[in-house]
Amino acid sequence: MSAPFPSDLEIAQAATLHPIVEVAEKSGIDEDRLEPYGKYVAKVVLDETTTAENARKRGAKYVVVTAVTPTPLGEGKTATSVSLAQGMAATGRNAMLTLRQPSMGPTFGIKGGAAGGGYSQIIPMEKLNLHLTGDFHAVTAAHNLLAAMIDNHLHQGNELNIDPRAITWRRVLDVNDRSLRNIVIGLGERMDGVVRESGFDITSASEIMVILSLSTSFENLRERLAKIVIGFNYDGQPVTAADLKADGALSVILQDAINPNLLQTLETTPALIHAGPFGNIATGNSSVVADYVGLEHSGYVITEAGFGADMGAERFFNVKCRVSGLKPDAAVLVVTVRSLKSHSGLYKIVPGKPLPEDMLKESPEDVRAGASNLQKHIDIVRSFGVQPVVAINAFPTDFNSEHEEIRRIAEEAGARVAVHRGVAQGGKGTMELADAVAEACDDVSELNFTYELTDSLETKLEKVATDVYGADGIEVTPAARKQLKLYEELGYGELPVVIAKTHLSISSDASLKGAPTGWTLPVREVRLAAGAGYVYAICGTMRTMPGLSKSPAAERIGFDEDGRMVGLF
Amino acid sequence: MSAPFPSDLEIAQAATLHPIVEVAEKSGIDEDRLEPYGKYVAKVVLDETTTAENARKRGAKYVVVTAVTPTPLGEGKTATSVSLAQGMAATGRNAMLTLRQPSMGPTFGIKGGAAGGGYSQIIPMEKLNLHLTGDFHAVTAAHNLLAAMIDNHLHQGNELNIDPRAITWRRVLDVNDRSLRNIVIGLGERMDGVVRESGFDITSASEIMVILSLSTSFENLRERLAKIVIGFNYDGQPVTAADLKADGALSVILQDAINPNLLQTLETTPALIHAGPFGNIATGNSSVVADYVGLEHSGYVITEAGFGADMGAERFFNVKCRVSGLKPDAAVLVVTVRSLKSHSGLYKIVPGKPLPEDMLKESPEDVRAGASNLQKHIDIVRSFGVQPVVAINAFPTDFNSEHEEIRRIAEEAGARVAVHRGVAQGGKGTMELADAVAEACDDVSELNFTYELTDSLETKLEKVATDVYGADGIEVTPAARKQLKLYEELGYGELPVVIAKTHLSISSDASLKGAPTGWTLPVREVRLAAGAGYVYAICGTMRTMPGLSKSPAAERIGFDEDGRMVGLF
Repeated sequence: MSAPFPSDLEIAQAATLHPIVEVAEKSGIDEDRLEPYGKYVAKVVLDETTTAENARKRGAKYVVVTAVTPTPLGEGKTATSVSLAQGMAATGRNAMLTLRQPSMGPTFGIKGGAAGGGYSQIIPMEKLNLHLTGDFHAVTAAHNLLAAMIDNHLHQGNELNIDPRAITWRRVLDVNDRSLRNIVIGLGERMDGVVRESGFDITSASEIMVILSLSTSFENLRERLAKIVIGFNYDGQPVTAADLKADGALSVILQDAINPNLLQTLETTPALIHAGPFGNIATGNSSVVADYVGLEHSGYVITEAGFGADMGAERFFNVKCRVSGLKPDAAVLVVTVRSLKSHSGLYKIVPGKPLPEDMLKESPEDVRAGASNLQKHIDIVRSFGVQPVVAINAFPTDFNSEHEEIRRIAEEAGARVAVHRGVAQGGKGTMELADAVAEACDDVSELNFTYELTDSLETKLEKVATDVYGADGIEVTPAARKQLKLYEELGYGELPVVIAKTHLSISSDASLKGAPTGWTLPVREVRLAAGAGYVYAICGTMRTMPGLSKSPAAERIGFDEDGRMVGLF
Repeated sequence: MSAPFPSDLEIAQAATLHPIVEVAEKSGIDEDRLEPYGKYVAKVVLDETTTAENARKRGAKYVVVTAVTPTPLGEGKTATSVSLAQGMAATGRNAMLTLRQPSMGPTFGIKGGAAGGGYSQIIPMEKLNLHLTGDFHAVTAAHNLLAAMIDNHLHQGNELNIDPRAITWRRVLDVNDRSLRNIVIGLGERMDGVVRESGFDITSASEIMVILSLSTSFENLRERLAKIVIGFNYDGQPVTAADLKADGALSVILQDAINPNLLQTLETTPALIHAGPFGNIATGNSSVVADYVGLEHSGYVITEAGFGADMGAERFFNVKCRVSGLKPDAAVLVVTVRSLKSHSGLYKIVPGKPLPEDMLKESPEDVRAGASNLQKHIDIVRSFGVQPVVAINAFPTDFNSEHEEIRRIAEEAGARVAVHRGVAQGGKGTMELADAVAEACDDVSELNFTYELTDSLETKLEKVATDVYGADGIEVTPAARKQLKLYEELGYGELPVVIAKTHLSISSDASLKGAPTGWTLPVREVRLAAGAGYVYAICGTMRTMPGLSKSPAAERIGFDEDGRMVGLF
C-alpha cells in the first residue's frame, strides 16, 4: 500500500498552467489558427491544410488506446492515454493527445470527471468538465432547433406529410434527468402545437454529436447535417433535415464547434479535446479533424476509444478509420489487476461501493483465472491488422506477482507489454510503455476491416458478432429484419454498422465475464443514423438519458469559504 | 427617400474588427482582467474593485436609453444606444455601452438580430446573435440542473414533502418551440420518474437570467441562487434551491457567466454585452456588474432598458437602480415618426407586413395626433427625478416637417430634443444628440422611486399603475390577493414588484394607443421570483415560450457558395 496520495482535484489545482499559446507554439501550431477561450484553452481553426492527405504525409505515428472489458469502475484508459503522451515526451518524443470531451451532465450525477487521474490529467479540469468552449451546448442548440422545426412543420400544416408516430428525432439536454425520458409534448391549446409522444436524451447521445466527431471538414459536416433522417412520412419515405430546410441553420450553430479544443496535460503535453459521442449507440470516439490536426503537428498522436476493444476500438477501426482514411500504427490495451480478477468470475464489483476485500489480497491465480478476456482483446486488436501493446495500469494495491502474471499472459499471446505508473508518477512512470509503443509503431501494420461496405447490413452485423465478439451468430427479430431490408431499399445498405450492447461483457450479457463463447447476439431493433453515416443495432436495454442518484454529486459541488471550487472530483 | 443603402449584414461584414485587447486597452481595462473568447470578444473578469462605490467614485455619467410605446416593429432603441455611444466618441467624449445579450432562439424565428442597425451596430454580429461566450447556455444548464434535482427529489422519496402540483420551476431552452410550452414528464416505467405536468420557457425568461442581471457580485449571485423558490411543500411552505442543496452546483455552472462580455461597435466604441432577461415577466435590463465595470472605465455609460419607459425604464429605476445603488444622470427617450403616427390611432401596423402606404405620406398632423404618448413618457421619466432627452431616430422616409413637429412636442413638455441619423451615418450623425445628453447629465438629477419597499405589495402595484401608467387603480382577483398575503406572511413583502403587461400600450390593453386614461389594471395572478428578488403580477396573457412562424428565418440561414454566412439579418 502506498503513502497518502493527494486527490486528483488537489493535484489539478496545484498544477502550473502554461499559456495555451505557448503550448500551441511548441507544436508548431500557428497563433493565427488559434481562437483563445480564456488563457488556457484555445480552438484550433481548421483550414485547407486540415486533410487526410496532410495528416498522412508527415508519417506521424497514430496510436489508439483501448482496453479489456472494464469493471463498472473503469480501468483508467484516459489516465493511461494521458500518461502515455507524457511518457512519450519524457522519452524525448513529440506527442499529442486527441480525446473526447466529457459530458457535463454526469459530472453532477456521480462523482468523477473524465480528465484522467493523479499525475496524468488534462487541465484546466474545471473547464474540461464544465462548458469548455461550448461545443456540447452548440450540439444541444442545433439538435433542439431541428426538433422545433419538425414540430413547427406539423403545426403549420405538415406539407411534407410526416407521420408523427414515425418521428425518430428526439430532443437533448446535457443533464441527467430521467423524468425527461418519456414525455408528451404539444399540450395546451391549438396554438401550442401538435400533441405527440417524445423524449429527451443526453446531448452526448445526439446524432449531431456523432456527426461532429466523424466530419472530415466543415463542408462535410454540412453535408452530413443535410442527410439526417428525422423520421418517415406516411408513404414510408425518409424525411431529412434538408427537406425541412434546417441544415443551413444547424451548420451556422455548429460553425465554431467543428474546431478542436486545445488544452494541456499536467506536464504541458498538448491535448486536443473534441466531440463526445456516447459510447453505446454512437461511436464513442473523439473527432476525426482533431486527429488530422494532431498528425499535422506531432510525432505521435495518442487517441482513446471508448469502453473495451470490442466496443470503441471496433468502431474506431470499422467506422472512424474508414471515414478518416487514417491507419493506426499501434493499439494500446489497458488492463488492470482488478479487471482480470473480476473476469475470473469470483468477484462482484458494485459502483459506489468499495472493492470486495478478498480482491485486494495478493493472488496471481485470480489474475490468471481472468486471462481469457485479455487474450480475446489481444486477438480482437490483431484481427484489425494492428499490433497490440498491453499496458498494465498499476494501482497502489497491486502486487508485483500479479503484474508479472499479466506480463506472462500478454507475452504468451505474443503481445508487447509494459507496466505503467502514470497516475502516481506521470510521464516518468510511463517511459517503459512509451518505448514499447514506439517500438510497436515501427512494426508494419495494416488495417483490415471486419466487413466490406458492400456486404448486406445483416452480414455486417453478423461478421462483427462472430469475428470480433466471438459469438456463434446473430438472431434478428422479424421486425429488425424488415427494418434492415427497408434501409437497404432506401439506399442506406452501404453504411457501416454500430452494435449497441453492454460494455461490461464481450457478449451481450453483462454477467458473462472472460471471453464468452457459445452465445448468439440478439438483434431486437435497428435504427438509422443517416447523417452520422451508420446503421445501429440495439442488442440489450440502452439508456440514453441517465438519472441522478439519491445523493448526486451536484449536492456537494460548489465553492468553499475561500472561494475555491470543491466537489468536482 | 434615400439612395439604395447597404443591408445591416453587408455593413457588419464589411467592418474592420479591432482586436478586443486594443479596445479594452483604450478604456484602461487591464489585459490581466480579460478572458479572450476568440480575437474580438473577451470577458472582463470581475474583481474586488467591481463595486457600486468604485462605480460612483469617478463621477462618470450614467445614461439610460428608453422609448415611447413602440410599434410591433420596434423604434430602434438599440441602434440609438449604439449611435449615441458613437456620437459621444465623435464629440470627443469617452463612452461605453452596456446592453443586453440577444436571445439566440428568436434569431431563427423572425428575421432580425439585436445588434443595432446600419452604421450603429455591435460586432462581431454573428457572435452576438449566436452563442457569444455561452452565458445563455450556462443559464440553460443551471436552470435545467435545478429542474432535474427537483424531479430527482420527488423520485427518490420526496423527503422535503414537495407538492408536485405546487412546483413553479419549469425548464428552459433557448429555442422557439411552442410544442414544449405544456408537457407531461416522467412517463414510462417506475424508474423513469414521477409523472407530472411541466413545460419549457425560453432561456431569457429564466429567473436565473434575471439573477445574472441583478447580481452585484459573484457572492451575491450565489446568495440569490440559494434563495430561489422552486415551489411549495404540502404545508404551504416555500422550498428553495438551498433546501435541495443545488445552489453550489448552479454557481459552479455560472462561474464564468457572471463576467460581462466586451465587444465593440462599428466605430470601435467598447460595448459590454451581458445578460438578457425577458422584457415582460422579468426586468428587461442588462447586468448591474457590466454597469459597474463601465462606470469604472468610461466617462459616459449608455445602457438600454427594454420596451417603453413604462416597462423597462420603470424597472430600471425601481428595481435595478435600487439593487445597484447607481443613479442615472439622464434618460434618452427614443421616438420615431412612425411610432407617433401609430399613436394617432389612425393606422394599424402588422409585423412582417409593409407599413400602410398612407403612413409614409408627409403629415405632421398625424405626428401631433400621437403626441400624448411622448408627453406621457416624458412625464414618466421625470417622475423618477431624471431629465429626459428626446431622441428622434430619423428614418429615410421621414419628412423634416414631421421631425420639427416632434421637436415642438418635446420642447412644449420642457424636454431636450435632438434628431439623430445614427443608422445612416453612425456617430457623426449623432453628435447633436450626444451634446444634448451631455448637457442633460450636467443638470442635477435625483432618483425618486415610485414606492417604498416597506409599502405593501398591493400598494406597490397600485402606485406603479397609477403614478407611472396613469391608471385609475388596480383590480386584484381574490386569488391574487391571497397570494400577495401569503408572500407577505412568508417574508417576501419587502421585495419590489414587476408588472407583466403588454408593451404595446402604456395600459394593459394593447389596442389602446397614446396615453390611455380612465382604465384599471387587472391583476389576475402574482408570482414570486425570490432569487431575482421581486414579486411579479400577471396582467394579461404572457407567452414565455415563442413559436416559429410558417416560414421561419432558420430556413434561410446558412452559408452561401463562398462560405459566407447568410440570412442572419
